[in-house]
Amino acid sequence: MFGFRVDSLCPDTCARVGEIRTRRGSVPTPVFMPVGTRATVKAMAPFELQEMGARIILANTYHLYLRPGHDVVGEAGGLHRFMGWPGLILTDSGGFQVFSLADRNDISEEGVTFRSPVDGQQILLSPELAVEVQMGLGSDIAMVLDECCACPAEREYVERSVERTLRWAERSLEAHDHPWQQLFGIVQGGVYGDLREWSARETAAMGFPGFGIGGLSVGEDRADMLRCLRAAKGQLPEERPVHLMGVGTPLDIVDCAAEGVDLFDCVLPTRNARHGSVMTWEGPIRIAGAQYATDRRPLSDECDCLACAGQYERAYLWHLHRIKEPL
Amino acid sequence: MFGFRVDSLCPDTCARVGEIRTRRGSVPTPVFMPVGTRATVKAMAPFELQEMGARIILANTYHLYLRPGHDVVGEAGGLHRFMGWPGLILTDSGGFQVFSLADRNDISEEGVTFRSPVDGQQILLSPELAVEVQMGLGSDIAMVLDECCACPAEREYVERSVERTLRWAERSLEAHDHPWQQLFGIVQGGVYGDLREWSARETAAMGFPGFGIGGLSVGEDRADMLRCLRAAKGQLPEERPVHLMGVGTPLDIVDCAAEGVDLFDCVLPTRNARHGSVMTWEGPIRIAGAQYATDRRPLSDECDCLACAGQYERAYLWHLHRIKEPL
Repeated sequence: MFGFRVDSLCPDTCARVGEIRTRRGSVPTPVFMPVGTRATVKAMAPFELQEMGARIILANTYHLYLRPGHDVVGEAGGLHRFMGWPGLILTDSGGFQVFSLADRNDISEEGVTFRSPVDGQQILLSPELAVEVQMGLGSDIAMVLDECCACPAEREYVERSVERTLRWAERSLEAHDHPWQQLFGIVQGGVYGDLREWSARETAAMGFPGFGIGGLSVGEDRADMLRCLRAAKGQLPEERPVHLMGVGTPLDIVDCAAEGVDLFDCVLPTRNARHGSVMTWEGPIRIAGAQYATDRRPLSDECDCLACAGQYERAYLWHLHRIKEPL
Repeated sequence: MFGFRVDSLCPDTCARVGEIRTRRGSVPTPVFMPVGTRATVKAMAPFELQEMGARIILANTYHLYLRPGHDVVGEAGGLHRFMGWPGLILTDSGGFQVFSLADRNDISEEGVTFRSPVDGQQILLSPELAVEVQMGLGSDIAMVLDECCACPAEREYVERSVERTLRWAERSLEAHDHPWQQLFGIVQGGVYGDLREWSARETAAMGFPGFGIGGLSVGEDRADMLRCLRAAKGQLPEERPVHLMGVGTPLDIVDCAAEGVDLFDCVLPTRNARHGSVMTWEGPIRIAGAQYATDRRPLSDECDCLACAGQYERAYLWHLHRIKEPL
């Protein structure tokens, strides 16, 4: 009943159409997940997300652990209830943010120690804590704690890191005890194809109901990304969903869906929008450009979003961007 | 056809129910106008304003003159079209902002000279320019340029200021040439009842289709405000609408509507909301308070706004406020 079902396969590529099934409902795949970092997709009301077709969002365990805390969210009846989101939620493990955002972090076998940016306290994010926090949040899909290596990273380091991530995955499975939350394993391995294969094979052997592929689209060449994705994907069971974490651009999504990826997430659309960068079928528009100050056309004639369908002129959007108005 | 119609009078107070009629439609009075400073009511989409019952908003001539400029708005087909607002718009004259926001300003018979905060240029805001800008914006109701005296101000100064404002009103009428925009005169006079009467009488004699009462609720006692309002109102023709500019709190609105005021505007609700202060039937809530961090109740049980009807908990709103999320 819970899990994943593949409905059809592309005859020419590895692309597939399927459905993620959870206690809260189903979502057709492939699917893009908008990122709701801190229990809100910035400046978007839940009904607005729904109107634009979002069915599942990603929320960040790291940020929610720090503020307001998984205990607060748990007592509010879980993250869905807390933020008023009727769709599904996937939470990451917090690892990526600890490695990329925390001022200082120390990795040990036990976990990652970092200094809280909120109160300066030392915090040990262990595989067990990452699972505990996500159970408290009550997401539909949780992720194991993994180490996302810097890019580039030495092979020897990545090898040790993959080993540790595998041990953390075992501990995460052990700690996970939830009636309907699905816990996904994560494949790492840097840009080393054989390490990607090994990480995928060992993680798959643990029997997770789905898998994340992490540490890609972090600065490596596009060709390396696709090569590593293929290496990992080849070792993962066909009947399980695969989430390519933090990917990506529209082109990345098309190319990686053709490799059989089912779930995507990226801050790109919301971050771009805040910074005045707009994607249209005719190409990108950077609305801060002086040429838009008097441009009376809508962003696109082929779009039915509120801004385009409402016939808001580029000149108005230029104005809003210039005065830093979040509307 | 355009203008104002009084439909009924309160038997006990001076309150009245009526209708402002413009080419774009009618609005029942008394009415509160949300403030859309820079061609947007901050963070609110036009459809959201409509859903909460707004029929007319106020926009700031000063801000729109500086950015994006009334020429840009005019070429976009006017302010309604530019910001996608289907209701009515009243614009102020820009005078209040010049006096209160500009770093330095010099008042002369000609107008007010100030330094643009955008590019440092010296700008002379004259009665004629204030009218020209508002005609370019295409608001339904425009206001004459007036001088809003500081509070407290010497009687002698206020007297000279009222005289000048009367001369500016004449010039504004002279300069105003628009097929359907209504131009309102403005009553000043500080806290001096006889000056208020005189200002109102002389302004009324010029035959404006409606009147603003300015320079109240700027720091004077509440009793002084009501006294001056009565003094002015007594000299204004019963059949013309009266706008009490920049007022006010819910209590002010009730009290001043009882004095026969028809139009109100204030940044209070939007500014309060941004600063985490909420008005409920049970009294104000400052959502930043630590006691709300785990408060699972909605803001109010008697409210049908999105936040209350959606059963968003105070704990969630506390969280959003704390992370400075504009949602």
